[in-house]
Amino acid sequence: MADSNALEGLTQALRRLPGVGVKSAARMAFHLLQHDKPGALQIARALDHAVQSIGHCALCNTLTESEICSTCANAGRDRSKLCVVETPADQAALERTLAYRGLYFVLMGKLSPLDGIGPHDIGLQKLFERVVPKNAQGEPAGAGSREVQEVILATNFTAEGEATAHVIAQALKSRGVQVTRLARGVPVGSELEYVDLGTIAHALVDRR
Amino acid sequence: MADSNALEGLTQALRRLPGVGVKSAARMAFHLLQHDKPGALQIARALDHAVQSIGHCALCNTLTESEICSTCANAGRDRSKLCVVETPADQAALERTLAYRGLYFVLMGKLSPLDGIGPHDIGLQKLFERVVPKNAQGEPAGAGSREVQEVILATNFTAEGEATAHVIAQALKSRGVQVTRLARGVPVGSELEYVDLGTIAHALVDRR
Repeated sequence: MADSNALEGLTQALRRLPGVGVKSAARMAFHLLQHDKPGALQIARALDHAVQSIGHCALCNTLTESEICSTCANAGRDRSKLCVVETPADQAALERTLAYRGLYFVLMGKLSPLDGIGPHDIGLQKLFERVVPKNAQGEPAGAGSREVQEVILATNFTAEGEATAHVIAQALKSRGVQVTRLARGVPVGSELEYVDLGTIAHALVDRR
Repeated sequence: MADSNALEGLTQALRRLPGVGVKSAARMAFHLLQHDKPGALQIARALDHAVQSIGHCALCNTLTESEICSTCANAGRDRSKLCVVETPADQAALERTLAYRGLYFVLMGKLSPLDGIGPHDIGLQKLFERVVPKNAQGEPAGAGSREVQEVILATNFTAEGEATAHVIAQALKSRGVQVTRLARGVPVGSELEYVDLGTIAHALVDRR
């Protein structure tokens, strides 16, 4: 593109954004430098600020600037239910339904053996300790003394999401925790003719 | 999304990138903070560096860190030909053909009345002064004393690109400069059946 190491460096850097290839990166760099230098500086400041200030919630693992995120700190939520999601965006989707008043646990990822992402790379251990905390003697707490009574698995209905849900369900059931999964079925507003076979089969099996 | 003003600010900032909506911006922010904090800092540094160091080439108007870009400074190029393009990316596409050894002028935009972009918002005045420089008495130089003998219009073949080419052609012809336009016609390797009618019509009119 143009004659500039700084421009080349910016284009290379922008390619680290997910979903941005070399043409998009060049177009972004060109747009910012030609039409929106204040925007470029705004993005730089926001990145610096976010990297410095954002960490993980001690309870639910989501991204937050505080020790405990506002959802976990909300005394009005039902602390006996814990909904496990892959990302903050998934949590936001569930929140928009206004149908759930419990707490969340955000894995910040999913099991993906092909990409080398195993149980230690996502928040599984933190989840298990959250649900079945150890007592003063280092032994798992009994069912009666536990805060979380039900774990709702809301990972995505993809191969990786299903595998992640399966691993969590196995581990928690062996610790005596009640584990449920979001219902699979026909999406609201859809016509059967256009729904895929796997979904219809699941909707038949899980009919109520 | 997650519980953080810094994250919200980063998502808002990333939306200033062209082609990035609210979902893409949230995904980018999440990816950088969860999986690629070094990448986030690299982008921030590259933005700062580019904004500080990049300006316009005094001759061809492209983005460069120097006073004169490397293409304009190249003594091996034919200085009697000047190819007018909209963006550095267009210039790069022409360079890849290896079919042109003249110089360029990069408008850094196109006329777009609907978006409020007129002749003063792109480099038209700078182009006219480049092609027909004023002499010591402030009068336009005569044809014999001009460096640029031919201006090749290579703006895009879109409505705005054509309008931009038309305005430049009118202005330069009235100053006695030879102006040509890239040939319109059937793309190399294409089958007539699948070429649009306007292109075929132009290819007929411009047959040789």
